[in-house]
Amino acid sequence: MKLFAALLVAAMEASHARTFLNPIPRGGSTSTTPPAKTLNLSSISPNLLKMEYAVRGTVVIAADAISEELSSTSPHPFDKIVYTNIGNPQSVGQQPLTWPRQVLALCDLPNVVGIDHPRAAEFFPLDAIARAREIKEGLGVSGTGAYSHSKGARVFRDDICAFLKERDGLEADPEDIYMTNGASPAIELALTAIVSDSSCGVMIPIPQYPIYSATIDLLGGEKVGYYLDEKKGWDANLKEMERALSEARKRGVKVNSFVLINPGNPTGQVLSKQSIRDICKFCSKHNLILLADEVYQENVYDPSAKFTSCKLAAYEENLVSTDKLELISFHSTSKGIYGECGRRGGYMELVGIDPKVKDQLYKLASSKLCSNLPGQIMTSLMLRGPKPGDESYESHEREKDQIFQSLVRRSDKVSKALDAIDGFSCQKAQGSMYCFPSVEMPEKAKKEAEDLGITVDTLYALDLLEKTGVCVVPASGFGQEDGRFGFRTTFLPSEEEMDQVVVAIKDQYEAFVKKYR
Amino acid sequence: MKLFAALLVAAMEASHARTFLNPIPRGGSTSTTPPAKTLNLSSISPNLLKMEYAVRGTVVIAADAISEELSSTSPHPFDKIVYTNIGNPQSVGQQPLTWPRQVLALCDLPNVVGIDHPRAAEFFPLDAIARAREIKEGLGVSGTGAYSHSKGARVFRDDICAFLKERDGLEADPEDIYMTNGASPAIELALTAIVSDSSCGVMIPIPQYPIYSATIDLLGGEKVGYYLDEKKGWDANLKEMERALSEARKRGVKVNSFVLINPGNPTGQVLSKQSIRDICKFCSKHNLILLADEVYQENVYDPSAKFTSCKLAAYEENLVSTDKLELISFHSTSKGIYGECGRRGGYMELVGIDPKVKDQLYKLASSKLCSNLPGQIMTSLMLRGPKPGDESYESHEREKDQIFQSLVRRSDKVSKALDAIDGFSCQKAQGSMYCFPSVEMPEKAKKEAEDLGITVDTLYALDLLEKTGVCVVPASGFGQEDGRFGFRTTFLPSEEEMDQVVVAIKDQYEAFVKKYR
Repeated sequence: MKLFAALLVAAMEASHARTFLNPIPRGGSTSTTPPAKTLNLSSISPNLLKMEYAVRGTVVIAADAISEELSSTSPHPFDKIVYTNIGNPQSVGQQPLTWPRQVLALCDLPNVVGIDHPRAAEFFPLDAIARAREIKEGLGVSGTGAYSHSKGARVFRDDICAFLKERDGLEADPEDIYMTNGASPAIELALTAIVSDSSCGVMIPIPQYPIYSATIDLLGGEKVGYYLDEKKGWDANLKEMERALSEARKRGVKVNSFVLINPGNPTGQVLSKQSIRDICKFCSKHNLILLADEVYQENVYDPSAKFTSCKLAAYEENLVSTDKLELISFHSTSKGIYGECGRRGGYMELVGIDPKVKDQLYKLASSKLCSNLPGQIMTSLMLRGPKPGDESYESHEREKDQIFQSLVRRSDKVSKALDAIDGFSCQKAQGSMYCFPSVEMPEKAKKEAEDLGITVDTLYALDLLEKTGVCVVPASGFGQEDGRFGFRTTFLPSEEEMDQVVVAIKDQYEAFVKKYR
Repeated sequence: MKLFAALLVAAMEASHARTFLNPIPRGGSTSTTPPAKTLNLSSISPNLLKMEYAVRGTVVIAADAISEELSSTSPHPFDKIVYTNIGNPQSVGQQPLTWPRQVLALCDLPNVVGIDHPRAAEFFPLDAIARAREIKEGLGVSGTGAYSHSKGARVFRDDICAFLKERDGLEADPEDIYMTNGASPAIELALTAIVSDSSCGVMIPIPQYPIYSATIDLLGGEKVGYYLDEKKGWDANLKEMERALSEARKRGVKVNSFVLINPGNPTGQVLSKQSIRDICKFCSKHNLILLADEVYQENVYDPSAKFTSCKLAAYEENLVSTDKLELISFHSTSKGIYGECGRRGGYMELVGIDPKVKDQLYKLASSKLCSNLPGQIMTSLMLRGPKPGDESYESHEREKDQIFQSLVRRSDKVSKALDAIDGFSCQKAQGSMYCFPSVEMPEKAKKEAEDLGITVDTLYALDLLEKTGVCVVPASGFGQEDGRFGFRTTFLPSEEEMDQVVVAIKDQYEAFVKKYR
């Protein structure tokens, strides 16, 4: 109990909870406190103060604190933290694919000690050398050491367009591609243009990935939530979307954009083509810019499901040729099979965006100079791997398949195992990297959480962390219907470890329910 | 002339100049235009619309357009664009240092095909292998493929602190280091917290590096300019700082922060320790958070000048031990001798910042997940190179020295040669990578520029570009005293090329003056 209390206080100190419990006096310090700093909680940007980001929030801060203690003598009933709070595959044991790292290494190396080294072929496969040479020629004198074009080097944007053409059968223009340090900065870039003042509203799914709520808060805009239908496997519901939009517009919110996350995060659903076509029509009809978060497009595990891009769906609804939809879609190297989070590679594609707006987005991108070159290279490699017949083709495909098949098994196993726990209900994870079970919370736990000024699923997640070392994110961090509680977990640790995690979650929940009965 | 006109229109179309000439009608489209997009110049964020970023602005957009034409049949009196608009050494021929790239490559490679490859030592120097092994051990299971801690991996923050300790003799706390994708995102991070509303003012030097004006505009804050003293080699002037502050506070601006760029950009001065101590006292006395842009700290060429960090100066004024200064300083891998712009490595150090504010900055950094790992690695390598006795020590030092000595020669030669042009006046570039000459403009040119709705130094820079292929940034993009005109040029192209650039600038200016006489 002592530990738990300390944990909770530490976590709350370092989170918005503290602010919530002790509202900051506006207008300067009181006489009993030391003279305030110029930059303090009263003077700091109120939008920043309000902003929440649960994926690395309260529970993770507590986990990090425990993690540091583990090396000392402090007693804990586990010997390491299992971080299932974030889609970060290589942090929990996924091995990097060999070929892209070899190409990357060759791109780093000056030619004389790299691709032109007389013994390069003894150390690197020929197709890695050839691809690195192609990239270096594409980059010209600048190489990987210079700022590239602010949208990303043309050679990589051409690769992205070729991939998009292959995926959808539709032309893509390299001038409409903006490469970024992962998808998050692309999302920020777009929202910075879109959220023009405090009356601006962005429709976001509930539950959602909190980069959206955080960025909208930071920009001072309005979040307009539309609920996903948990009972229907987190499907989107047109009626609910219409309700959310019309209610918001009625209260004067200038709703101008709509976020779709497909495959879903934290919810793991893969929407049908029809659903996506309907959403495109909805956005077109209501003059909403569609922000399509498609970073999990490769992560589809359910054989009955198939990823459809918003661009293709919009095309099939004649919204592209008639120029009747404004669409910005996002992709990343951090997810998929590559899982190269540390490279921070990603991009957005603009479709149907006003040319003058594009100039403004380009200006904004320019002020950030460019995204990192290794991330740009990794994006190109992810979208265009070795070809059949290349030296690395078979080993590369084998490595990818091993990761993919294991994800397929884990997605199924973990969602079923969580669903089987008494008091839990968990939809199938058709895609992405997450399960998002709902969990029945004892009334007394709710009361205690209320007294502490935190959500009951935060209380639950802190207890889970303290008892088992498993670090999940409280569902409240993603948004959910009133009265629903739960958490998000990845299924990224190894299959053996995930089995143990599920058992630990089950045992702790039984104890938790008992404690608060 | 046809070309020039087309160039100008293209450049203006793609810049704020267009907006300036044809103010956007507010409140929707007229009946003669096609139905407006949801996101258009009337609905886009007005802060974004207002924001300018000259380093990659009008003139550079025109240069890019010409550059594309050069491969076709269009006649130009030159065969390539010489980009001196941006401090991007490797884009204009600076070779990457070998050792850091070798370490980076080994960090990319999976161990079995990298540091543990049986023949690794035949391909890589032993100290590169050892350092990569140390980094990999420091990163643990996550390696370079996972999101790191949102402030950067601890192993690299420790290196940064060791460097800071060695530089200043003062302890640094890894918890106060935030690693970022270059210095720009760190500057954005800090200003996002600081600029809390439209009454907030940030003091910036005039001239300044436009990331500051751009970010303040984007956040909707107020720029409070203090003029540097051109006649005294762009020295800071306390009286002028007091004037600027008191005038701004008198008109109700809540000035809460102060930007110092040392060594200067675009101005190239290296401030004396006394100047920096005075600035620290000024900030402390007036409760201003000091934002210290120290990215050029390695780029000091004048033997009579020496870089002093704000942290050391503040310490010597007893402002650190007494906790009387709030200081945030920035550094980057893009400048210095490494010039590794494409890695996007950098960090900020917080000194004297309120712990609760640090939590908020950490939350903001968390929402961005982390900076890219290759950039983090490069930061560590830049601050801790091979030691005497290591296999790569001598060659690494030799490579660095060649770059440095050439920069020393160029800084001197280019500033003197520009200063010698009739109608030009150019202060000595003691440091950084830039010359910032003032240029007398013919009255008729001023009139023509006014008619076109652009600044006369933009007109001049476009003419220089058209006639010579040399791409500089108009001085108006950095700010300057009324009635002063000029431009910023780097001295980064090779010595032979810089000689030609200076001759081209001289010849074009003579023709320009003649044309508008």
